[in-house]
Amino acid sequence: MTFSTTVLTLYPEMFPGPLAVSLAGRALSEGTWSIDPVHIRDFATDRHRTVDDTPAGGGAGMVLKVNILAAAIDHARSVNPGAPVIVMTPRGKPISQKRIRELADGPGVILLCGRFEGFDERIFEGREVEEVSVGDIVLSGGECAALMVLDACIRLLPGVMGAPSSGAEESFEDGLLEYPHYTRPTEWEGRTIPEVLRSGDHAKIAAWRKRQAEDDTRSRRPDLWERHRDARVQPASGARRKNEDLGS
Amino acid sequence: MTFSTTVLTLYPEMFPGPLAVSLAGRALSEGTWSIDPVHIRDFATDRHRTVDDTPAGGGAGMVLKVNILAAAIDHARSVNPGAPVIVMTPRGKPISQKRIRELADGPGVILLCGRFEGFDERIFEGREVEEVSVGDIVLSGGECAALMVLDACIRLLPGVMGAPSSGAEESFEDGLLEYPHYTRPTEWEGRTIPEVLRSGDHAKIAAWRKRQAEDDTRSRRPDLWERHRDARVQPASGARRKNEDLGS
Repeated sequence: MTFSTTVLTLYPEMFPGPLAVSLAGRALSEGTWSIDPVHIRDFATDRHRTVDDTPAGGGAGMVLKVNILAAAIDHARSVNPGAPVIVMTPRGKPISQKRIRELADGPGVILLCGRFEGFDERIFEGREVEEVSVGDIVLSGGECAALMVLDACIRLLPGVMGAPSSGAEESFEDGLLEYPHYTRPTEWEGRTIPEVLRSGDHAKIAAWRKRQAEDDTRSRRPDLWERHRDARVQPASGARRKNEDLGS
Repeated sequence: MTFSTTVLTLYPEMFPGPLAVSLAGRALSEGTWSIDPVHIRDFATDRHRTVDDTPAGGGAGMVLKVNILAAAIDHARSVNPGAPVIVMTPRGKPISQKRIRELADGPGVILLCGRFEGFDERIFEGREVEEVSVGDIVLSGGECAALMVLDACIRLLPGVMGAPSSGAEESFEDGLLEYPHYTRPTEWEGRTIPEVLRSGDHAKIAAWRKRQAEDDTRSRRPDLWERHRDARVQPASGARRKNEDLGS
């Protein structure tokens, strides 16, 4: 079954772009996934094909008009039914590997790419749209973020990755950062591969990697570590978990 | 002065890709920024042009070889001196708009794109490399993330954005999410633009937007809100801030 993607954008020529190359490109030509870049301007109703207008209340920049966005979304849903509509915005919920995996397990995705100052807020109330954030930075538009979300989904589709085990042992799958990697040469500029990795003792290697993943997560990403720790204690402590969900 | 970017990648044909279009594309052709995609394979030393090898200690996938990466980085530094080397990896520090602004204020950037299982960890000790994360998801390679980081930098370069004020009032510049936007039509499917935005009272509008930005940050991103609040109380409470930095 083809993973059907629709991209609503003012720059359809940006797609598939880098996703026409490498693993994603091969999977695209084999029909594992498809992409339909749709021009938001096609849903404008005046002869100037206007898609934006000045912000209510004043301020710099232009805002994408809610009626045009709604028409574009309604069209995308009619040709790609069952696919969730996702919009990349700094105001969204930080994207997670768990959500990427859910998307990749589904029928496809509709990605709405913003430009200018952003969207008329009413689109999020008037249509079922999922707002996701891909980092606390500001882009010129949602297009590069859409390419990234698509790339993350595509590599999980059946048959795309060479070794299927690559998917299960990697970053975030257990809520931790991945352990560090090494390969030949054994010595480089006086730095050697950790001895345990050269021991051939698989149990020791697995234990070392687990400890590294935990240590690195704790020191580099205390936020992830806290969530990982809470998830582990949850069965014995449902009440505490509930408080954390409320942000207290 | 041109913002000089070098991208070390196994897929140089992916660049400039979407950045050849729109604002970034015009700025590229005007010489505001430049891009030099460099093939990592050019630094392989055997006749098969090998860049990767199996992970020490076993496991799925392949690891990029440290000596090849070092040669590629050394080359990039020689042609693009003064530019920091940045690698996009889930193990990195989450990218921030503050860091993007610092990069955009500098001479350029060298972006190292991973593939396969990732990098031999020794490259991060043996060369000065900054590890950044663009969200807790796994990509097939660093290329789409590199495009996103470049896009975020380019829009801040002098002359690229139409209205210079668009840069200062937007998301994260004060540690908050941006307030919601609205534009005509005033009524859409029974939903109206908030009345205050139609009042013409600029002080009231500014106060409403500030409160919206605060409310939305608090409810959507408690992590950002906590940092924002701590930054505000810092002058009166240095000791507390210090504790927070230690993750306690």
